[in-house]
Amino acid sequence: MILEGAHRRSIARTADGAGVAILDQRLLPWEVKWVELRDAATAAAAIREMWTRGAPMIGATAAYGLAMALADDPSDAGLAAGYDLLVATRPTAINLRWALDSVRAHVADLAPAERAAAAFARADAIADEDAALCRAIGEHGLALLRTLHARNPHRPLNILTHCNAGWLATVDYGTATAPIYLAHDAGIPIHVWVDETRPRNQGALLTAFELANHGVPHTLVADNAGGLLMMEGQVDAVIVGTDRVTANGDVCNKIGTYLKALAAHDNGVPFYVALPYTTFDPATATGADIPIEERSADEVKWLTGPDAEGMIRTVRVTGSPAANPAFDVTPARLVTAYITERGVLDKV
Amino acid sequence: MILEGAHRRSIARTADGAGVAILDQRLLPWEVKWVELRDAATAAAAIREMWTRGAPMIGATAAYGLAMALADDPSDAGLAAGYDLLVATRPTAINLRWALDSVRAHVADLAPAERAAAAFARADAIADEDAALCRAIGEHGLALLRTLHARNPHRPLNILTHCNAGWLATVDYGTATAPIYLAHDAGIPIHVWVDETRPRNQGALLTAFELANHGVPHTLVADNAGGLLMMEGQVDAVIVGTDRVTANGDVCNKIGTYLKALAAHDNGVPFYVALPYTTFDPATATGADIPIEERSADEVKWLTGPDAEGMIRTVRVTGSPAANPAFDVTPARLVTAYITERGVLDKV
Repeated sequence: MILEGAHRRSIARTADGAGVAILDQRLLPWEVKWVELRDAATAAAAIREMWTRGAPMIGATAAYGLAMALADDPSDAGLAAGYDLLVATRPTAINLRWALDSVRAHVADLAPAERAAAAFARADAIADEDAALCRAIGEHGLALLRTLHARNPHRPLNILTHCNAGWLATVDYGTATAPIYLAHDAGIPIHVWVDETRPRNQGALLTAFELANHGVPHTLVADNAGGLLMMEGQVDAVIVGTDRVTANGDVCNKIGTYLKALAAHDNGVPFYVALPYTTFDPATATGADIPIEERSADEVKWLTGPDAEGMIRTVRVTGSPAANPAFDVTPARLVTAYITERGVLDKV
Repeated sequence: MILEGAHRRSIARTADGAGVAILDQRLLPWEVKWVELRDAATAAAAIREMWTRGAPMIGATAAYGLAMALADDPSDAGLAAGYDLLVATRPTAINLRWALDSVRAHVADLAPAERAAAAFARADAIADEDAALCRAIGEHGLALLRTLHARNPHRPLNILTHCNAGWLATVDYGTATAPIYLAHDAGIPIHVWVDETRPRNQGALLTAFELANHGVPHTLVADNAGGLLMMEGQVDAVIVGTDRVTANGDVCNKIGTYLKALAAHDNGVPFYVALPYTTFDPATATGADIPIEERSADEVKWLTGPDAEGMIRTVRVTGSPAANPAFDVTPARLVTAYITERGVLDKV
């Protein structure tokens, strides 16, 4: 990823190697602030309080957090305490548990004096694997985008995306954004329609920030606009991420994804879902089996941003009762293809 | 309409009959302020600066404005000057011109001394006709809602609406909301999902305000949520208004309407468009022939509302480039029926 002109990862070891630096995403895009995590308690707070988010980033942060716990106390008790502290931060995050289990298994049989270094090495490997995985998604997606661009080589390729499945949620490249960054870097003229993604506005706040830093032309639109854009021929493909793909290929993703998939289908626009292969969940039969998280109505009712003088303020959007389902399900029949690190699948 | 517990119209003559009172919609829902329009210049400002909006309300306000102009100067020159002042306020508003033409034709052959009273009488008639028309839309829509409710009589009828086609835009009842108010008044248990309607938030600000005042249970949702709600069986019908219906039945309405029509079709939910018969535009062949208004990106980029202390503030939603198409086109194939004052049409 490119941030403020330089290439760096979303999570990286500090110069002395004893901690990691991450962006405080709660302040983005209004303030770009790197925070250093130097002990397990701070790493746990970063996950719990959503300084960082996204399954791969949460996993990598937790892995480093466990290494820091072992640097403080490499005993069996220290290992257990660090694990328990970190695993409790986001109880439903599968990747968090997987990363902690991986580090624990890697060090459990070592002498205490060797554990911290081995845990840091394992955390580094987890981060490296995630970056390589996202890059592989990007390369497979790039092949699709090259084909689309060849159909209309004299105009920019227009991609629409929803929410943020970008490098802020991963160690590098992102998932849905990886093909976009690789296409841009390969010289394909590309423009991205960024859905605002109400109510948390991850598109407006995070995806637009990423694209601006990487230099990819983009335009923010209200979530309502995508259907018209597709009808007008202004979208060549939709690419989104996903939290879970069920055995039949249904896609659970940020609320509103389904509406864009319907519009893509109605207008013959390819609808791609980019995901690490581990996001396939063969144990869940269909999207109807996924419980939809209902988040606080306050996310709908209030909005925070800087006023004209740059002072961050929170204003009321509505005084009415509000509901806030966080995800929806896009039926497999609306998905053109799944872009994974292993290749592109037409169906699950 | 019921406002603060009493029945009144959106526009009504003042006690002395010489002016009219309207709500300043720029302040809603945060402040409920009636303003009296007592001369043509103020009426023109109310239209031009959007204290009031909606084709029927603009028409009625202009008609009363011309009557006030004639109360000041009933000469031919006064009539011409009043007409010119008012017709220029919103150049593309067909109903504005129609209402002014109607008043002018009604008084042009009268002696100057008789003109003001006759103009006020014609303006009253225009307002009465609009209220009766919306009520007739409501009665035809009520029959549809009764049938839907009878299918599941033991639970509330759930309606989803987008934007504001309510009594704030008409003299009374509204168009899309008329069936809802009449159903509520008839004792049918009804609940309305109110789309926020980004970027101008007419659902959050205006429709929710109307429903709250009338006592109709309602819940605000992000525009992204409607697809999931329909998939979950939580929507029995969608009712929206429209700015124009073309000869083939395509529906031009607020941006995002098309996405809800797609979701309704995909889930077998009836999708109704409520409109005065005059909104049918046989001179325009299809939705593809309608130019889509592109409004200021600032409507996407900034949001205004009260902070926790009640101070009205404007905050930035994004610093990115933004686009703001204001309308989209819902193909006729997605429309279940058109609810008009003359009856319910399955097709145009």
